[in-house]
Amino acid sequence: MTDRLTHVRAALTERDLPALLVSSPANRRYLSGFTGSYGWLLVTPTAALLFTDSRYTLRAAREAPACTVRQVTNPERPFPTLLAEAATALGLARIACEATHLTVAEHHSLSEALGATCTLVPVADLVEPLRALKDVAELALLRRAVAITDAAFTAVSERLTPTTTERQAAWMFELALRLGGADELAFPIIVAAGPNAAQPHALPSDEPLGRGRPIIIDLGARLGGYHADLSRTIVLGTPDARFWTIYKLVAAAQRCAIAGLRPGLRTHEADALARDHFVAAGYGAHFSHGLGHGVGLAIHEEPALRRTSADTSKPLRPGMVTSVEPGLYLEGWGGVRIEDLVLITETGCEVLSRAPKLAAD
Amino acid sequence: MTDRLTHVRAALTERDLPALLVSSPANRRYLSGFTGSYGWLLVTPTAALLFTDSRYTLRAAREAPACTVRQVTNPERPFPTLLAEAATALGLARIACEATHLTVAEHHSLSEALGATCTLVPVADLVEPLRALKDVAELALLRRAVAITDAAFTAVSERLTPTTTERQAAWMFELALRLGGADELAFPIIVAAGPNAAQPHALPSDEPLGRGRPIIIDLGARLGGYHADLSRTIVLGTPDARFWTIYKLVAAAQRCAIAGLRPGLRTHEADALARDHFVAAGYGAHFSHGLGHGVGLAIHEEPALRRTSADTSKPLRPGMVTSVEPGLYLEGWGGVRIEDLVLITETGCEVLSRAPKLAAD
Repeated sequence: MTDRLTHVRAALTERDLPALLVSSPANRRYLSGFTGSYGWLLVTPTAALLFTDSRYTLRAAREAPACTVRQVTNPERPFPTLLAEAATALGLARIACEATHLTVAEHHSLSEALGATCTLVPVADLVEPLRALKDVAELALLRRAVAITDAAFTAVSERLTPTTTERQAAWMFELALRLGGADELAFPIIVAAGPNAAQPHALPSDEPLGRGRPIIIDLGARLGGYHADLSRTIVLGTPDARFWTIYKLVAAAQRCAIAGLRPGLRTHEADALARDHFVAAGYGAHFSHGLGHGVGLAIHEEPALRRTSADTSKPLRPGMVTSVEPGLYLEGWGGVRIEDLVLITETGCEVLSRAPKLAAD
Repeated sequence: MTDRLTHVRAALTERDLPALLVSSPANRRYLSGFTGSYGWLLVTPTAALLFTDSRYTLRAAREAPACTVRQVTNPERPFPTLLAEAATALGLARIACEATHLTVAEHHSLSEALGATCTLVPVADLVEPLRALKDVAELALLRRAVAITDAAFTAVSERLTPTTTERQAAWMFELALRLGGADELAFPIIVAAGPNAAQPHALPSDEPLGRGRPIIIDLGARLGGYHADLSRTIVLGTPDARFWTIYKLVAAAQRCAIAGLRPGLRTHEADALARDHFVAAGYGAHFSHGLGHGVGLAIHEEPALRRTSADTSKPLRPGMVTSVEPGLYLEGWGGVRIEDLVLITETGCEVLSRAPKLAAD
């Protein structure tokens, strides 16, 4: 955590900001180590104050040794009062706050408490770009979460039958993830068969998986706060004629993308690696989401590999971990998605996911 | 959902607001029925527009029949653009937004897209007071979630032994909740033994439960979006001398509170029903949280039964469902919490939770 505080302090200095108030739970955990559900973190060049309530003060002291813990007590000592006291004690005339996390009401009540002597300045992209670059400890947790996810997919997918329902299958995957060591699910598991698979984010239903239909399975373990994310598309029995056309397109698009990812490539160019392949085949309209998203303490974080204008696009950098998940969705028939996590390296990318795929060649 | 839209439209009219933009996921689900992870709902006296992306458009159309679904497509048709088009088409000069949910960055980008002809007005407490009063469908789901929770506690607590670890016990409770019909957990289960129980929100550890020590267990099923919440404190073997002193105080405080809850009582007065009992016994400082919180589509919602100044306190009303969870926490020794869910009725309250408690008399 000390390194992370050093980095965020450097980012503050670079932007000429004397302090940052962290309200995002993931950013708070990243910078302090504190895992409780309620807390605020104030970082200055010399101080790191962690505010939480009596439910969590003991945990905060244990998990966040680099921080000074201050206890919020309502109604006597609410957080806005404590923040104003800290601003006065530290001589802060401005405090940066997280524009994409702080609510309008929080901004209002904190500004009111700070009064005329200290301004709350909304800023974006201070901690998130740091989080996008994974350190050794983070990569170790991500690799373990990926390995648990791969093992759960491999073991359970062999036990599915045409009479298994989507919901039963989702529960089998969940149990395998948990018994395999996951703390919890990274997100609600998707098991979508036949026409249900035409929805990229379907809810598991009580319909049986059936024979010959595409079945999209999307699952991930969460471990030590870090998220894995894996999608596979399988068929029980003999697939229909359309299946292999669609599956081979998606598999080829994923191969193109993985071959092309490298530092310096911009996020909209990464998306185009797969999208251009679909467009050339006449299926561009059926790839209705982005190519991928970063994973870490959040299931969706930077980088966002998707269509954007070139000026909002960002370059990939070594140490980023992102999903690569092209998919095609055909209403009435179903869909195919294949998703791996990859680590951007100095020269290209390393595929982290090892769960088996259908042989598409 | 039609009734709920009618109620929120009446609340808008009452405050002279021509439209409401709902960004809170729970409020969106409450008013529309839509369960996806991304969406915005715009409610006017005559329209209900639900904006979501391609992952969810099919689900939105199925789950939210009273709404018109509009698809957000990035980067061509981002949400701010669609909102501005809707504002123009509907002739809206003002749109209320949810101050406690909308972020500073969202407020900025939406205001920019709306331009000079339409203002985004932050408001609070428009949908939340409606959600606090449960309708028949909500009460049915809450009662089922409570019954699953009671059954899981009863079955598993009998199987715990002094060598069971906190983490193993939490997993046993989780399995019982899920096999009993819960969609998922209402929150991470707490099993805290001995000194760990001095933290109101401890994380389950690999320590065994042990003999003679207080063990706080806090668990809940989530079903159809609705949350149950139950805490019990048990001991394996013979408790130490201090245990019964503390346990009887907490049990008596809970009885006082349940006997006193009724419509018209204000939330800070409800809190005082238990707190005064602890203060009189000299233990006031050890009751470090509020008496309870509403439950529904969120695990913490209105009403908040806690110490506040009288002017921010609100009266209880029939149809509210709240936890009643007094607790005492003694650092180094442990703690005791006893929590039931109750429904405020026309004359008092009905206790919904039926899990057994230790006989404290």
